[in-house]
Amino acid sequence: MKSLIPAIALLFSVFIGAQELKSPNGELTMQFSLENAGRPTYKLSYKNKSVIKPSHLGLELKNDKSLLNDFTIVKSETATFDDTWQPVWGEEKDIRNHYNELAVTLKQNETDRIILIRFRLFDEGLGFRYEFPTQKNLVYFTIKEEKTQFAMTGDHTAFWIPGDYDTQEYDYTESKLSEISKKFDAAVTDNASQKQFSKNGVQTALMMKTSEGLYINLHEAALINYSCMHLELDEETLIFESHLTPDTIGDKGYMQAPCNSPWRTIMVSDDARDILASNITLNLNDPCKIEDTSWIKPVKYIGVWWEMITGKSSWSYTNELPAVQLGVTDYSKVKPNGTHAANNTKVKRYIDFASEHGFDGVLVEGWNEGWEDWFGQSKDYVFDFVTPYPDFDVEEIHNYAKSKGVKMIMHHETSGSVRNYERHMDKAYQFMKDNGYDAVKSGYVGNILPRGDYHYSQWIVNHYQYAIEKAADYEIMVNAHEAVRPTGICRTYPNLIGNESARGTEFQAFGGSKPNHVTVLPFTRLIGGPMDYTPGIFEMDISKLNPNNNSHVNSTLANQLALYVTMYSPLQMAADLPEHYEQFMDAFKFIKDVAIDWDESIYLEAEPGHYITVARKEKGTNNWFVGNVNGNEARTSNIKLDFLEKGKKYEATIYADAKDAHYKTNPQAYTIKNKKMTSKSKLSQLSVPGGGFAISIKEID
Amino acid sequence: MKSLIPAIALLFSVFIGAQELKSPNGELTMQFSLENAGRPTYKLSYKNKSVIKPSHLGLELKNDKSLLNDFTIVKSETATFDDTWQPVWGEEKDIRNHYNELAVTLKQNETDRIILIRFRLFDEGLGFRYEFPTQKNLVYFTIKEEKTQFAMTGDHTAFWIPGDYDTQEYDYTESKLSEISKKFDAAVTDNASQKQFSKNGVQTALMMKTSEGLYINLHEAALINYSCMHLELDEETLIFESHLTPDTIGDKGYMQAPCNSPWRTIMVSDDARDILASNITLNLNDPCKIEDTSWIKPVKYIGVWWEMITGKSSWSYTNELPAVQLGVTDYSKVKPNGTHAANNTKVKRYIDFASEHGFDGVLVEGWNEGWEDWFGQSKDYVFDFVTPYPDFDVEEIHNYAKSKGVKMIMHHETSGSVRNYERHMDKAYQFMKDNGYDAVKSGYVGNILPRGDYHYSQWIVNHYQYAIEKAADYEIMVNAHEAVRPTGICRTYPNLIGNESARGTEFQAFGGSKPNHVTVLPFTRLIGGPMDYTPGIFEMDISKLNPNNNSHVNSTLANQLALYVTMYSPLQMAADLPEHYEQFMDAFKFIKDVAIDWDESIYLEAEPGHYITVARKEKGTNNWFVGNVNGNEARTSNIKLDFLEKGKKYEATIYADAKDAHYKTNPQAYTIKNKKMTSKSKLSQLSVPGGGFAISIKEID
Repeated sequence: MKSLIPAIALLFSVFIGAQELKSPNGELTMQFSLENAGRPTYKLSYKNKSVIKPSHLGLELKNDKSLLNDFTIVKSETATFDDTWQPVWGEEKDIRNHYNELAVTLKQNETDRIILIRFRLFDEGLGFRYEFPTQKNLVYFTIKEEKTQFAMTGDHTAFWIPGDYDTQEYDYTESKLSEISKKFDAAVTDNASQKQFSKNGVQTALMMKTSEGLYINLHEAALINYSCMHLELDEETLIFESHLTPDTIGDKGYMQAPCNSPWRTIMVSDDARDILASNITLNLNDPCKIEDTSWIKPVKYIGVWWEMITGKSSWSYTNELPAVQLGVTDYSKVKPNGTHAANNTKVKRYIDFASEHGFDGVLVEGWNEGWEDWFGQSKDYVFDFVTPYPDFDVEEIHNYAKSKGVKMIMHHETSGSVRNYERHMDKAYQFMKDNGYDAVKSGYVGNILPRGDYHYSQWIVNHYQYAIEKAADYEIMVNAHEAVRPTGICRTYPNLIGNESARGTEFQAFGGSKPNHVTVLPFTRLIGGPMDYTPGIFEMDISKLNPNNNSHVNSTLANQLALYVTMYSPLQMAADLPEHYEQFMDAFKFIKDVAIDWDESIYLEAEPGHYITVARKEKGTNNWFVGNVNGNEARTSNIKLDFLEKGKKYEATIYADAKDAHYKTNPQAYTIKNKKMTSKSKLSQLSVPGGGFAISIKEID
Repeated sequence: MKSLIPAIALLFSVFIGAQELKSPNGELTMQFSLENAGRPTYKLSYKNKSVIKPSHLGLELKNDKSLLNDFTIVKSETATFDDTWQPVWGEEKDIRNHYNELAVTLKQNETDRIILIRFRLFDEGLGFRYEFPTQKNLVYFTIKEEKTQFAMTGDHTAFWIPGDYDTQEYDYTESKLSEISKKFDAAVTDNASQKQFSKNGVQTALMMKTSEGLYINLHEAALINYSCMHLELDEETLIFESHLTPDTIGDKGYMQAPCNSPWRTIMVSDDARDILASNITLNLNDPCKIEDTSWIKPVKYIGVWWEMITGKSSWSYTNELPAVQLGVTDYSKVKPNGTHAANNTKVKRYIDFASEHGFDGVLVEGWNEGWEDWFGQSKDYVFDFVTPYPDFDVEEIHNYAKSKGVKMIMHHETSGSVRNYERHMDKAYQFMKDNGYDAVKSGYVGNILPRGDYHYSQWIVNHYQYAIEKAADYEIMVNAHEAVRPTGICRTYPNLIGNESARGTEFQAFGGSKPNHVTVLPFTRLIGGPMDYTPGIFEMDISKLNPNNNSHVNSTLANQLALYVTMYSPLQMAADLPEHYEQFMDAFKFIKDVAIDWDESIYLEAEPGHYITVARKEKGTNNWFVGNVNGNEARTSNIKLDFLEKGKKYEATIYADAKDAHYKTNPQAYTIKNKKMTSKSKLSQLSVPGGGFAISIKEID
């Protein structure tokens, strides 16, 4: 009798079991069914064009019957949700969360186990996840691999970075899907910690464009207590399958029902701007869990940082010792190296500059003992996060900053030594509160300790979450670098005001990034949440800071200004040295003026790898800021200013590339023009290769 | 020219390099030399008999030239040390630390690296360790394996347990060295977490006896920031070589100079009593690092424990749920299972009993939420260490115990989830202090999290140390079960008042231990420090507690009493149920009377596997207590009471096996006799198989 079950299931799925879900506007259609042998399968279409071909769903379990097939549908429930919520900070004052939902409850016949697959179809895309309700037969289980498929309809163009368990700090490669494996090796560049798993492995958010002009984006939302998902392509079938980050012993997830996977998201549109404007990732996360959020505030800051990144100065205090031991090494007796940047004099200079120009905060890296041998030694007790070098007086700096109305920003580099960080976390956070620090930049450079684990495994993902939640207890904002890339968790914990998790500006001092890098990031890295990209570099010739560093910043100065608008973040750094800003005070004015929190954002133009133009309305004012970043070829933006309020008059200041500007040969050539504008105005504005423009628009009273 | 170096080194070692060290009494001789190719080599003799044949020293490094050979002697320094110190608690009021030292500084020619091997030769044995001074060419290094040899002179009889990275909870096997591999599989019994590495792998402390009647013991002292050492035997050559516990990725030690290995110890004597009386392990540890030790006090306690161990009652509160989630599961709404032992009523009964009979403390296990699914699930957030079950009122119990003059003893089972414990440690310790707990029994049952790591790796050894030191900050005493076996660290941190780390009394309820087990433990497990063996079982038929448990306690009642004297510990439990003690109040009197801290200890008789008899003088009084435990065959002890003060009169109460007693067939048959005694008295006393006797001797005023 048992052999009949697959046949019955097949019939059931084809004739009875097929479930259809439509997006609110009717343009997206998702169909779910059980295919051969009770295998969960979905497909997705947009305006009657196939986006995802029939794709299987399920999970492979360790030492257990897998949750892949042998299912029957027990129950199907549909619902509609439409709500508008207000983020603590964001691109919009109001965010609409509007979707139709299908929740399919499945029973695995042999095991009598229940799983539920929940689909939410928004106008801009689909989210779905696995849910494991409380039950007798499925309590604890270990995931060997998640087997979620995304079957592509053709050999799309993709903007991808190599799948890696430890880093996302790669330049994007634009290629056909079928070319990924051939281009993989060239796409892998050196990193402090890295581990690839397949030459067809890529990371999410993955941005694609079809030959028919559809834009497709694959990512995940609400990565909590689960391993980070990568995608592996089958070159023959063009099917992507999920590939989770393993732990040290190769397991991919330890689960206890009731529980669920993160959401898998598929955004799709024939207009690339819709991808950038979508709030699917945030909407699939839980509402804010922090009751009083009054202490969470967007931050514009400068920092003692770029001069170390470029090699002009050092994080470390001495060059005299081959190694140091915290609490043992007596720094008062060693010879200072003379290049230590985080000293009282220099920090005060930064505080003065921040105060003079209205910045909220000053980040100081290298202020604490341990930087002499912090990296690459698998050093467990590498930092204590509370002991300053002799030339950095925490109290004096605290008082000085306070007197100048500036907040200090803490830096916690962990060197990947996660246990050590957790051991010191309470004291480190308390130290911050005692000394006037409200925000911390944390870092996870190098291989993870416990050794053999990866930056993106479930265990370490849990650590980042622990750090965020504990910081919230102390009313501390977190900007975590080298942590797992964000998945919209900032909705639930808005004290997570930034992440790195991509190739940031620092790589411009490590040899340079691709000129069109910043036209890709908003389609990929920023889908999950804001990035501490650290823009604002005015001096593109790094050898002027450090004669031994021949890097060139592949960007025009105007492009650097535009980033404050195109790279949405509530945390924005002016990363260059004060003395460089002082050489270009007219351009610097834009950085001083630009808002960091918004009532509204309108994407005016967008094409991944080529250009992005966005207009944003400053929170609580009538001021607008427009940013355009441009890729490898010169291009003229033709935009309408119809987003301005009708009948009002505005004055715009346009910071643009000079005609002869070029990211490589003439990056500092810019123009600044003032123009009167109304909602009827149009603007035609050139951007050179690697260039862009930034516009500040203020209402005239 | 290079090829000449080995030859030169050989000459050097044979003719110049041989260094000799004698013990203070001249009976032990250690010789160190550089053998072929500059290989560090030592040998040891006792009364002109070889104990350790020429054995190599050194370390294999990972991805680096190993520190095995190519050495020349740069410097040799000798010293004599003689000092007497007072432990916070111990077998003796005064401990003499008397040794001759040889410190050999070696340079590795090719690498220009310096290591130092420090030998300390005591009258009862040798300790040596590797030291890595600050230097340019050896800063960070990873140990692939330590290659310390102990070359045996013959096929000795050994008392061994299987080498295992996760547990020491095995019965001892007595066999010839050459038989270890053949008997290995039979020696491995099931454990909650276990991982053997070789059929010739054994653990330390390893006790041996030669055919010539020499007793040899191999162990280590001061295991700090290093991996636990096992021994692996080469069956052909009878050479033991060190085998360190690896971490998840197979590495065995992450070192940063200046640093050193633990001490490797070789005790030797022709009198087995010297092995038991030796303080080498303590003497090789650093002096006490806790300034104010006034809060550290020996503890005699009872506990709500044995009834769970036997299966009579349960740690868990409900049987209704397949799994629980801390902070989610609402215990106030579940159906109690009716077998939960840690309830207010029962705990008060224990407090009453403790108060009535003068016990210092009451341990309660299973008081906190999470026991429904605590084991074997690789559950990360398994306990929070602060949330009681609904039927255990922390404040009420605290007040009740206080009113009765009894201290509560905390229980922290971690289920091996080490990160979770560290995350909660501060709060858990503070909770203890807030609620009147001064001591904690911690547990590490099951596989370690981070998954893939082992109980005895450097990383996890560091955790136990972290827990001890942090507890000291809170003035908390620690009794850590399933942690790495002790190595004398209680000298440095005397708040470590106990460990399990061997097969304790609980195994008597898990099927039973060998009758002579307790005649071996003082020669093995106790070499490193006190054990929370939990003696005092009066009801040997476990089926009387739990009809489904047919275990038999392989011990006579008199043997159980003797354990309070033979198993030295400042922490002693009376493990059986109050109702069992109430059936034998005359015998129970010994447990009430016996001291737990001592001015003096005299080992009267000893033969591993057969018998141990020891007399101890209670701290600050003239009372003596004598204990004898006996092995598999009946035996009569003939002892002189000449340790008693001359001219004084004493009354002795002798708790002994009845003539027809037997551990298996008649374990509860005992006699109690009173006798007057002086320093001239002699005693002839029978002990049956698995039996023993206990004597309480009080000065008559």
